[in-house]
Amino acid sequence: MTMIERVPGLVTDLYELTMAAAYYDNRMEGRAVFDLFVRRLPENRSFLLAAGLEQALDYLYNLEFTAEQIDYVRRHPSFKNVSREFFDYLADFRFTGDVWAVPEGTAVFGMEPMARVEAPIIEAQIVETFLLSTINFQTMIASKAARVVTAAEGRAVIEFGTRRAHGTEAGLFAARAAYIAGCQGTSNVEAGYLFGIPTFGTLAHSFVMLFDEEDDAFRAFLKVFPDTATLLVDTYDTLAAVKRLTEDFEADIPSIRLDSGDMCQLSIEARRILDEAGRSGTKIFASGDLNEYRIADLISRGACIDAFGVGTEMATSYDRPALSGVYKLAGLSRDGRMSMKIKMSPDKSTCPGPKQVWRLTSEEGKHVEDVIALADEDKSAEGAAWKPLLELVMRDGRPTDERLLSTDAGESNSAAARSAGCLARLNEARARASEELKRLPAELLSLNSETRYRVKFSERLAEEKRKLEEEITADCLFNLQEEANHRSHR
Amino acid sequence: MTMIERVPGLVTDLYELTMAAAYYDNRMEGRAVFDLFVRRLPENRSFLLAAGLEQALDYLYNLEFTAEQIDYVRRHPSFKNVSREFFDYLADFRFTGDVWAVPEGTAVFGMEPMARVEAPIIEAQIVETFLLSTINFQTMIASKAARVVTAAEGRAVIEFGTRRAHGTEAGLFAARAAYIAGCQGTSNVEAGYLFGIPTFGTLAHSFVMLFDEEDDAFRAFLKVFPDTATLLVDTYDTLAAVKRLTEDFEADIPSIRLDSGDMCQLSIEARRILDEAGRSGTKIFASGDLNEYRIADLISRGACIDAFGVGTEMATSYDRPALSGVYKLAGLSRDGRMSMKIKMSPDKSTCPGPKQVWRLTSEEGKHVEDVIALADEDKSAEGAAWKPLLELVMRDGRPTDERLLSTDAGESNSAAARSAGCLARLNEARARASEELKRLPAELLSLNSETRYRVKFSERLAEEKRKLEEEITADCLFNLQEEANHRSHR
Repeated sequence: MTMIERVPGLVTDLYELTMAAAYYDNRMEGRAVFDLFVRRLPENRSFLLAAGLEQALDYLYNLEFTAEQIDYVRRHPSFKNVSREFFDYLADFRFTGDVWAVPEGTAVFGMEPMARVEAPIIEAQIVETFLLSTINFQTMIASKAARVVTAAEGRAVIEFGTRRAHGTEAGLFAARAAYIAGCQGTSNVEAGYLFGIPTFGTLAHSFVMLFDEEDDAFRAFLKVFPDTATLLVDTYDTLAAVKRLTEDFEADIPSIRLDSGDMCQLSIEARRILDEAGRSGTKIFASGDLNEYRIADLISRGACIDAFGVGTEMATSYDRPALSGVYKLAGLSRDGRMSMKIKMSPDKSTCPGPKQVWRLTSEEGKHVEDVIALADEDKSAEGAAWKPLLELVMRDGRPTDERLLSTDAGESNSAAARSAGCLARLNEARARASEELKRLPAELLSLNSETRYRVKFSERLAEEKRKLEEEITADCLFNLQEEANHRSHR
Repeated sequence: MTMIERVPGLVTDLYELTMAAAYYDNRMEGRAVFDLFVRRLPENRSFLLAAGLEQALDYLYNLEFTAEQIDYVRRHPSFKNVSREFFDYLADFRFTGDVWAVPEGTAVFGMEPMARVEAPIIEAQIVETFLLSTINFQTMIASKAARVVTAAEGRAVIEFGTRRAHGTEAGLFAARAAYIAGCQGTSNVEAGYLFGIPTFGTLAHSFVMLFDEEDDAFRAFLKVFPDTATLLVDTYDTLAAVKRLTEDFEADIPSIRLDSGDMCQLSIEARRILDEAGRSGTKIFASGDLNEYRIADLISRGACIDAFGVGTEMATSYDRPALSGVYKLAGLSRDGRMSMKIKMSPDKSTCPGPKQVWRLTSEEGKHVEDVIALADEDKSAEGAAWKPLLELVMRDGRPTDERLLSTDAGESNSAAARSAGCLARLNEARARASEELKRLPAELLSLNSETRYRVKFSERLAEEKRKLEEEITADCLFNLQEEANHRSHR
């Protein structure tokens, strides 16, 4: 028995592979354009912070199918009529497409493509599930974490949620997304090891309980962690423990942690006890079922808390635990001709053609409005205040950011070097997110904002959509008429 | 750049490692007993189905720290005063403890240990985060899926949620947990490859849109998948598409999929069209934002749906997206003496000692009540209707189920053989879950059940808890009194 080894090639829904086989065996060719976007912002979210792109590119760049994986598909009961050539195709499969995407940490809104994939049909289809799963999840967490960080008004927020995340990988990437959104770090050690994210830890009730006396536990911990110990003081009686720390301990107490009870009152009392004992350097850290609303409430009531540990609610985006990003066909280019594509299902219609999102920023540096346009429209002609959001991040299957290729070049591949590289890129995304939070209209940052940021379609895009809808509706009416004639003649 | 390689040893919160170092450098020894349990059932859940144990055992059996991982911890700013010997200890680290747990698929309730870990303190502490993350997540999903499966009243439910799950690993294990709870299978191909779970796929709107005519898409798909094709009929006009399928297609249509609109009405109309055309063999499959309530509603209104694809809501347990399982110290055995441990924090008190859960089943085969007892109590003496739930699943760090060790014995290690082994064990858990759903009191299975299953503490356990609480309270009072004296003398 060995730890499970993940199988990136098969991280896909079976229908991507049935469609791939049907495209292949029907000789459907051409280059497809797919948009990855969220139709409407979830309730309680007035913006999203895009995240997860690095993992998506990593997947695309490394995607392949091993002989054993192909054998699994070949033996699948649905695939018995599929040609042998399709499986040969899978054996040579690489993703060779182009990807345009908004950089991680960018604020995005409903209907705006976070990514646009342009690739041979089968390639573009097979990657749908992985891209959605990865970008939906990290974007959801970054967007939630931005709310928590905003509520903390400059106080540190540490991500604490792995134990309640949706499994250990979800914990890892929740830590990553939360860091992009402005958290100071995480308790997740793997995230520190792999991504270089600062890690923080305190101690648990079990540690205190294992000693005969609470103070013995405190002394034992301080002995080993004199500079960084955060002592959990609520195992028996919070304020009694704080008092003893000020009276019976000579050593500096770097910080204490409150984890239950009336956190506001306890923090004020604890601060008073500490300050009166000349321990103003001791920080107060709070944890325990926190979210953006409780943090805002604690701060508004004058709680004396220097840093917050936020777990479950942030690592699961508890109030909105799924982001309904979709991946929709927008066009097909065949024989040098691009045909636009839209879907007409009720409430689920889509928008045609390859797109770019343009953002207008005011002279004061505030974002004013976005325009979703066709990719060949150039709004920079209207002034330098318009900036395009989507960048070419992968060309012919290779990431355009050379740093993502560094192991190819034989550079140092130690864990420390890899994590330093990850951290450098993460810090760029984190700086971008921080900048975005300053540039967004202030009213969008209120926790209960009803304001919607203005997003428009360009005239050309709106016109293309209208034309296609008319064509399809005309077709449908024609078909219904034919149907009616047909029935009346029976 | 290579796909991310997970680092099981560091899938832990930093505080587990700070505590480990503090135990080590303070020579705290002894064998700890930890319980993993949920204090209260979440709202809208009247029972839980335990899941995730196989992954937990796999982790425990393989847990180790590589030199690079240890180096990361050594260089961590918090660890600069930690002894060199601690890192040598980590280099030789293996989990050597015993684990008692309820088998996957077992129904459990609040306060009942799903797992009990007995191991040297440091080992028992370090594994906390991984065990919680894995068992919390899969148990949450299995419990949600049991509601969906129950609502479907025998119709097939297929898990469809990877694209909205919390990342790709969450999608994989959601598929596994949903299968245990009674789903027929999943769309997740990796879950089929790794665990042998049956996989199902249809086709997407993009497939239909890529052809000039909807019927061309249907024909192309049917050509390759004549026996299993499920044709998505809602891209343009659902009933018009169904009519054309009955009139213009000679081939059998295995099934159609509805994904939008008034699913009840459309399914009734589609069924009528199909039946009138002699196509009663064509199944109707429904998907699109389904959950247990919508399925129950569709069925109650007479919808003609043979199978349901359920994604987002099941794979994220959308209405209750976190399970607050905890891992609490219950005792410490040192020098041959077991001392019981409890925590007194407000609302978060725990229960002392190693425990067993006994379940009473009536002559009619219905579960009647559970008793949480000390591990050395034997309620089987009161009659064969009492059965213990916790089994010894790991002894001295080795799984007791020999099948989990099969690769040690040099047996076939092909992907197909491994997944067949996984599936055999999964099917046992799935049969157990199915049996549990029959044995639970019927009122617990109602979606809006207000009924609570009866769970009691044994008299001895209740007495131990009371005694410890009195001792701790007496200590606290004594300390407060001393504090008061101390203050009055200043």
